Amino acid sequence: MSDPIDLLPALKRPADSKIVMLVLDGLGGLPHRQIGLTELETANTPNLDELAAGGICGLSQSVGPGITPGSGPAHLALFGYDPIASNVGRGVLSALGVGFELGQDDLAARINFATIDSEGAITDRRAGRISTELNHRLCDKLRAIRVPGVEIFLETESEHRAVVVFRGDNLSHAIAETDPQITGVPALEPKATSPDAEATALIVSRFIGEVRRVLEDEHPANMILLRGFAKLPSLTTLPEAHGMRCAAIAGYPMYRGLGRLVGMDVLATGKSISEEFDTLAGAYGEYDFFFVHVKSTDSRGEDGDFDGKVAVIEEVDRLLPQITDLEPQVLVVTGDHSTPANLGSHSWHPTPLLLSSPVAMPDEATRFGERACAGGVLGVFPAREIMALALAHAMRLKKFGA
Amino acid sequence: MSDPIDLLPALKRPADSKIVMLVLDGLGGLPHRQIGLTELETANTPNLDELAAGGICGLSQSVGPGITPGSGPAHLALFGYDPIASNVGRGVLSALGVGFELGQDDLAARINFATIDSEGAITDRRAGRISTELNHRLCDKLRAIRVPGVEIFLETESEHRAVVVFRGDNLSHAIAETDPQITGVPALEPKATSPDAEATALIVSRFIGEVRRVLEDEHPANMILLRGFAKLPSLTTLPEAHGMRCAAIAGYPMYRGLGRLVGMDVLATGKSISEEFDTLAGAYGEYDFFFVHVKSTDSRGEDGDFDGKVAVIEEVDRLLPQITDLEPQVLVVTGDHSTPANLGSHSWHPTPLLLSSPVAMPDEATRFGERACAGGVLGVFPAREIMALALAHAMRLKKFGA
Repeated sequence: MSDPIDLLPALKRPADSKIVMLVLDGLGGLPHRQIGLTELETANTPNLDELAAGGICGLSQSVGPGITPGSGPAHLALFGYDPIASNVGRGVLSALGVGFELGQDDLAARINFATIDSEGAITDRRAGRISTELNHRLCDKLRAIRVPGVEIFLETESEHRAVVVFRGDNLSHAIAETDPQITGVPALEPKATSPDAEATALIVSRFIGEVRRVLEDEHPANMILLRGFAKLPSLTTLPEAHGMRCAAIAGYPMYRGLGRLVGMDVLATGKSISEEFDTLAGAYGEYDFFFVHVKSTDSRGEDGDFDGKVAVIEEVDRLLPQITDLEPQVLVVTGDHSTPANLGSHSWHPTPLLLSSPVAMPDEATRFGERACAGGVLGVFPAREIMALALAHAMRLKKFGA
Repeated sequence: MSDPIDLLPALKRPADSKIVMLVLDGLGGLPHRQIGLTELETANTPNLDELAAGGICGLSQSVGPGITPGSGPAHLALFGYDPIASNVGRGVLSALGVGFELGQDDLAARINFATIDSEGAITDRRAGRISTELNHRLCDKLRAIRVPGVEIFLETESEHRAVVVFRGDNLSHAIAETDPQITGVPALEPKATSPDAEATALIVSRFIGEVRRVLEDEHPANMILLRGFAKLPSLTTLPEAHGMRCAAIAGYPMYRGLGRLVGMDVLATGKSISEEFDTLAGAYGEYDFFFVHVKSTDSRGEDGDFDGKVAVIEEVDRLLPQITDLEPQVLVVTGDHSTPANLGSHSWHPTPLLLSSPVAMPDEATRFGERACAGGVLGVFPAREIMALALAHAMRLKKFGA
């Protein structure tokens, strides 16, 4: 069957309504081994529970059953995009993550600093996880490199990770990664994987040659490995697709970059939850759709800090009236994926979602939690559908067919 | 993945079983603001509840999440068609709605009578919503128009709405609508939007020229605007696809037209529910599949008449033994979409469904209502799958694969 989500742009209808999508990164969890409840089930969340009771609930799944999404596909799915077709390469995500403003012609790649021996064979693919400070100094050195035909930008991520952006005409992403994934062998050549990438491959190869010369006397980081060559995908933006003025409120660069990628205005904000909610209130009149991103649920999950994650969720709940007092026609609260503290990493478990609206048909879920949401009307469903439901409840979609 | 629904015709198997699909138009609703229950949840429906308890339940969704369907796609989905791929243009639906028997070569378009000033600029796109009586008189006048190469038919819908059908060879639907959607400008030309529609565009243009001449002295309806140029889609009929003799029992022309479109025999019937059920009983031996359409649930919903919609549902329940006494192997009761009295219009909310059959695996839903059906085994599911389930429970499908 044709994909109904593709119909949405043709059905757009102007409205005065507001939509707030509050994303608690890595919200979903697993039961604590002693108490038998997840982080969200453990948290005291009277405000979220009230919204769940009056709205519709489910467990959203970004990519597919059993598939653990990265932040890129997870957010693109939340914004209504096909997370597979619109998947963004690692290089682009790294550039967005450090706040680099990528242009349409830019080619980005992820750098790992590495160690090679006198024969050129790799002895450590992460250069002993050098400090971020050293990474900064090395990037400074590499900024002196010139390769004809391109401008080159270097940015530190952290430890051994950095990002390089080549700016020039007709650059291709079809370049094979240079990391052989094993030690004891030299780095691979940045080979063109399609005929029209030969010129780009030559540029990258010259760059790596220069890097090797510049880092010659460094130890342990005397080489780089490149992977995830990628350019910005060309996506129909949310304002184009749905006729809404869209704003991103996110304290961390990666999520600001993902918002910018889909045409959101990125609002200046502090990193704390209450600063983000203040930013929302301050800009409320100027936009129709707000993406509000809370990072620390995911961070505590990655740390394996069950109680810390519970505390973040409780903080969100306490501050929630800052949003509900604005009375948006649609308030969606969900995560982009699960990050169970038990696992200390992203996972494939579908993520609790509630959608609150005066025109929602309340379901049987009366609190906000993994198992409560499993009993909601949406069941386990594709995250891509969230945007369709939000638009519908905001009365922003016309009837399909006569 | 391949669509399993496409397998059904190859799996068809003869059987003596009967299937009754009872469609309560616009059945789904929203909770009443005081009592907190929907129209269906409020209604006293012991017979429907008994069927729900012994059968399988769910919430059916015609087109997709958040998408409000028109009557055309909603019914085509109930009949097992892809509602997007088989979407029927407004002109065809208008023609079906007035009971016009469209042929495969006919081109239909929706007419709005409008008002233009002496310069030709539109001053009212609906001609002040003229009376249906005046509309009849104007259509009579327009029937005198002759354009070489086509026969032209005109039919009143209501108020300012009418339908025109051009009958001729090689007519194309690829004609741009002439309604500019704003006033103060002239009507648009009926331009060809594909090269093979040039001849048709010329015919339509000549027709409009004649209309303008004929209506010159009328006020306020001195012009027409045309939109929704469409021809009948060519669908595999239900009898062809599933080897069943199919009958439509519907008091209103639109639904008779939709039944005819998919190869049903349209039975003469009164408009009341009991007359429709009598018609079913009278023709029971002659058909295998019955589509029985009840309009007034939708009408009361559109009127915003919560209690009136409850009363219609209770009337259906009271009369239901007229159907159950026939003991069809499969009885499906559902709506084509929701029409909550709170909204007074079609909506996107999925619609309660029950399927009763001696070979159904009863689920946990023990009454017929939105929230009860949300807990049924089908959950929220595509309406397109209903026909597959009905055929299966009627033992009308062979095994797939060895």
